[in-house]
Amino acid sequence: MSQKILISIDAMGGANSPSAVVEAIGRFLATNGDTFFQIYGKKMDVLPYVILHQLPKNRYKLINCDEAISDDDKPTEAWRNGKNSSMRKAIEAVQNGQAHTVVSCGNTGALMLIAKMLLGTIGNIKRPAIAGVFPNMKKDKTIVLDMGANLECSETHLFQFALMGSCFARALFQKENPKVGILNVGSETSKGRELEQMTYKILEESELNFVGFVEGHEVAQGKVDVLVTDGFSGNIFLKASEGAAGACIDLVKASIEKGNVIAKLAGLVLKQSIGKSFKHLSPDANNGAMFMGLKGIVIKSHGSASVDGIVNAISTAHQLVEYDINTKISEELALFEAKGVGLNFVDIIKQTSAKILGLKE
Amino acid sequence: MSQKILISIDAMGGANSPSAVVEAIGRFLATNGDTFFQIYGKKMDVLPYVILHQLPKNRYKLINCDEAISDDDKPTEAWRNGKNSSMRKAIEAVQNGQAHTVVSCGNTGALMLIAKMLLGTIGNIKRPAIAGVFPNMKKDKTIVLDMGANLECSETHLFQFALMGSCFARALFQKENPKVGILNVGSETSKGRELEQMTYKILEESELNFVGFVEGHEVAQGKVDVLVTDGFSGNIFLKASEGAAGACIDLVKASIEKGNVIAKLAGLVLKQSIGKSFKHLSPDANNGAMFMGLKGIVIKSHGSASVDGIVNAISTAHQLVEYDINTKISEELALFEAKGVGLNFVDIIKQTSAKILGLKE
Repeated sequence: MSQKILISIDAMGGANSPSAVVEAIGRFLATNGDTFFQIYGKKMDVLPYVILHQLPKNRYKLINCDEAISDDDKPTEAWRNGKNSSMRKAIEAVQNGQAHTVVSCGNTGALMLIAKMLLGTIGNIKRPAIAGVFPNMKKDKTIVLDMGANLECSETHLFQFALMGSCFARALFQKENPKVGILNVGSETSKGRELEQMTYKILEESELNFVGFVEGHEVAQGKVDVLVTDGFSGNIFLKASEGAAGACIDLVKASIEKGNVIAKLAGLVLKQSIGKSFKHLSPDANNGAMFMGLKGIVIKSHGSASVDGIVNAISTAHQLVEYDINTKISEELALFEAKGVGLNFVDIIKQTSAKILGLKE
Repeated sequence: MSQKILISIDAMGGANSPSAVVEAIGRFLATNGDTFFQIYGKKMDVLPYVILHQLPKNRYKLINCDEAISDDDKPTEAWRNGKNSSMRKAIEAVQNGQAHTVVSCGNTGALMLIAKMLLGTIGNIKRPAIAGVFPNMKKDKTIVLDMGANLECSETHLFQFALMGSCFARALFQKENPKVGILNVGSETSKGRELEQMTYKILEESELNFVGFVEGHEVAQGKVDVLVTDGFSGNIFLKASEGAAGACIDLVKASIEKGNVIAKLAGLVLKQSIGKSFKHLSPDANNGAMFMGLKGIVIKSHGSASVDGIVNAISTAHQLVEYDINTKISEELALFEAKGVGLNFVDIIKQTSAKILGLKE
């Protein structure tokens, strides 16, 4: 059996580790013959689940790591003190070329910092972004980036996010020419801050499929495949959506529970079909964010993801390896940079002055 | 009959004007004996509805205005060219002391600009904010500001928003000591941009009931009574929530409609109780945003508000006049400014240099 996709996985991060992680590996292996897992974690904690879920012996390797990074660890502490942690070792597997991709349910900030330090960034990208998958009403999905890695951004960053997000949408949704929009307070071209205005000008000149500004309520309607914004706004956008959807689901449940016997019976009848509709919206169905712009495919699963959710995150990692996403991003970046699109004045000035002074930036 | 509350109203703005506006006035008058309306609009358009809804003759005055500002007008155009418009005339009634408050369903940007130009701002407030009402799961409501008037803000602005929002919450919800939070990407004190960090320091020192940072999904849970943020983030927050809630409601409807006969029957049974639960969330139930910081009570109704929604906006205006909100805001501002709380370094430097140079700012 040829096992061409090598996935390294941190078995210790998240609320349901290592049990849910190992079960997800088992489930993924059952339908994906081309994959081999390197599982990093405390052997005595992980092994019982490996046995329980009967992972096939020739399809995984369990590497013992005595340390684990917790959700409370500060990223800088995790970087300094977590040299033997399962998270770090799993990332090192990608760094050393032993794995094509790494998946973790652990501490987001620590994962980003360690991955950035060990793997570095692609080409001119200085700010890796977190790209998440957001469900929309077209029974489709929208890539949103940045979700919170960079609270303040320049138009160059947003342009790079648009380019990387387009590659992600192509890989995940098989869309040849994904529609890109900028999150804004209005759809008219005069709206927004200087950031949105400047990014608009760059994207308009680019060859991306740019459709303009998108308002908060239009994303759920499926207006775009890729939504770019700074990490502060992206985080607010996602959590506000999550809060409102959660509140609505709770209200539907409460109005069934508070009802009379007939209402309760009716609720039972509808439970299945409503549940089915909402499945598409669940965090598990959309689990697996990519840290884009790193020299390596790093996938972050929700800390509280269920087995289904982790299977989805693994599946995203697998798809991105198959698509060879980072090569695609490098090629597109080189193409745009050759044309000078996406460099802001500050960058041009920096580059020019560096040339004059004979310095490398 | 003593009519102590004088409300001036722009009958021409919004999608359902003047019919819904006039009907709302009639409905409000039926239960509020203390109110007198000055209705500004095209007489021949408005009069038929006045007759239809039998407005009592001694409770209103209809003032003819041949012009109306449309939603497509740019604020600056509306200011320059709309001198005889119903919106401007309605605001002038407040400016001239003929009315206590003004209500309009019209163009938000135009209403803000004209109101700011005619009425001016309270004390040291240079940036009026739009404060909206956001429903939460405690069957309670949260004041959110700014909703989009000031896309970029300083910590001084956010402090002033916190103070004004607290007055709003006291007036509207009769809460003695409303809880104030700052919208942020995380609840830990280290999280956020410089704006959130600096605002935290000011609010911590203030005597407002400051509870710290609030994440996007925690607002719907009712964590705070007043949520402060810059206008860009506030707008994204509200529209994202609106989009997600709308998507959920559509999904519930679709799963009932697509179901079999039994599902449809069950849907009929539940329709009423679900509808009742969701009523609290509807834009109409939360209609009526205040433009805070102006020398005058200016209430903006949704452009697409129904009669119920406009009645709620009028009711908010009425409550704020009764509470004498602007006097309360002025008093609190003076109190805090006497202590030096809420002035940032730039303000202090400006004030000091103005004193040295013998200039007024």
